[in-house]
Amino acid sequence: MQRYFSKQKENDQLFLDDNDLYHIKTVMRMKDNDEIIVVFDNIPYICCLENVNNNIKIKIKKEYETTDEKIPIVRLIIPLLKEQKMDFILQKATELGVKEIVLYQANRSIIKVKDNFDKKITRWQKIMKEASEQSHRNDIPNIDGTKKIKDLEQLDGLKLICSTREKEKNIKNILNLNKTYDKINIVIGPEGGLEEQEEENLKQIGFIPISLGSRIMRVETVPLFILSIINYEFME
Amino acid sequence: MQRYFSKQKENDQLFLDDNDLYHIKTVMRMKDNDEIIVVFDNIPYICCLENVNNNIKIKIKKEYETTDEKIPIVRLIIPLLKEQKMDFILQKATELGVKEIVLYQANRSIIKVKDNFDKKITRWQKIMKEASEQSHRNDIPNIDGTKKIKDLEQLDGLKLICSTREKEKNIKNILNLNKTYDKINIVIGPEGGLEEQEEENLKQIGFIPISLGSRIMRVETVPLFILSIINYEFME
Repeated sequence: MQRYFSKQKENDQLFLDDNDLYHIKTVMRMKDNDEIIVVFDNIPYICCLENVNNNIKIKIKKEYETTDEKIPIVRLIIPLLKEQKMDFILQKATELGVKEIVLYQANRSIIKVKDNFDKKITRWQKIMKEASEQSHRNDIPNIDGTKKIKDLEQLDGLKLICSTREKEKNIKNILNLNKTYDKINIVIGPEGGLEEQEEENLKQIGFIPISLGSRIMRVETVPLFILSIINYEFME
Repeated sequence: MQRYFSKQKENDQLFLDDNDLYHIKTVMRMKDNDEIIVVFDNIPYICCLENVNNNIKIKIKKEYETTDEKIPIVRLIIPLLKEQKMDFILQKATELGVKEIVLYQANRSIIKVKDNFDKKITRWQKIMKEASEQSHRNDIPNIDGTKKIKDLEQLDGLKLICSTREKEKNIKNILNLNKTYDKINIVIGPEGGLEEQEEENLKQIGFIPISLGSRIMRVETVPLFILSIINYEFME
């Protein structure tokens, strides 16, 4: 069943924005009495369409039962990257269950924060909303940008840095030792990696450098690799 | 150091194709005595450039020491997909260590084998060669297309199907039970999944259906998810 996110509920009726209504009417060509799933406040509802060709009404039939995910909350802390790589990471990380994306300004980031940043955030939120719908999530990840490294101190939970310098501790050792954490924060470096001083600054505010093994991956592959692993580690 | 693959070696000299020579001279603007790594017959050599501006010579200085990977040989068996998705899978699966890509014709594949198939294979080989260079591999994955389901019987090693029908066995159970396999074959379904009869046919030739957990992923995300997991499972 097609899935949408709603921000407004009144009694047994849910409301969607104009893009979603267009999608229902014109792209999906739905009819009266067709059913969709609409998520409101992280709860999915089976809904029935009424009056599709005029002033469409979305009526709740009942709550849609889902099973809870059991992976920890994952916060990906990524540098600003070029548009295509950023879009790719946001889409795939959403599919793989990321809860929050925190953007930070790395010294080696090619991309700098510019005036049109609000526009970008809106675009990224749209990508994550669509990926959440497609992957049947009951929530949409948050995106928070852009922080300086020192601002990351306040994050709670396990704090990791993907480091090319670290040769001893790898992600497997760390995850096996930390099964009780319910939040995992992971910093991913820009192309060319974090500078030594940046890594040092992160260590001073509680981040632990870990290796991802011997593979050499592109920056945009790293978040997928990590999220796949976390899903696997907590699979039952 | 920049890395290239060579198909020809004579004494202490290695030969590259014209695209790579163009890359060295014009893109990288290298000079005499600059060093590169050239892989010949799965062995990487540190080489020195001579006579760059004329008839370039690539002289072997010594073998480049690398550590062996310890993951099993992974054969991804994927349906024909649209160009962009295929390119994406080939690039990322190469980064993550796939050894062989086997293409098969699924009933629900939108893409059919056409006359220009040889051209496509050449294009895909180029993508995998470049991804192998970037991720510092000493080999380039093979691509083999396109097989019918019954032709997959001859493959040796552990045989898995990513199945949305399977509710009991997941990839974690199977990998934990099969640590001694040195080859893993994994069939990934097309958009919309394998038909029940196709899955049945695969089971009859020794394939085991497994679930990938509760996430709903796009087809092109699945190979990355699986390869990340296998790298993790065999990480030391």
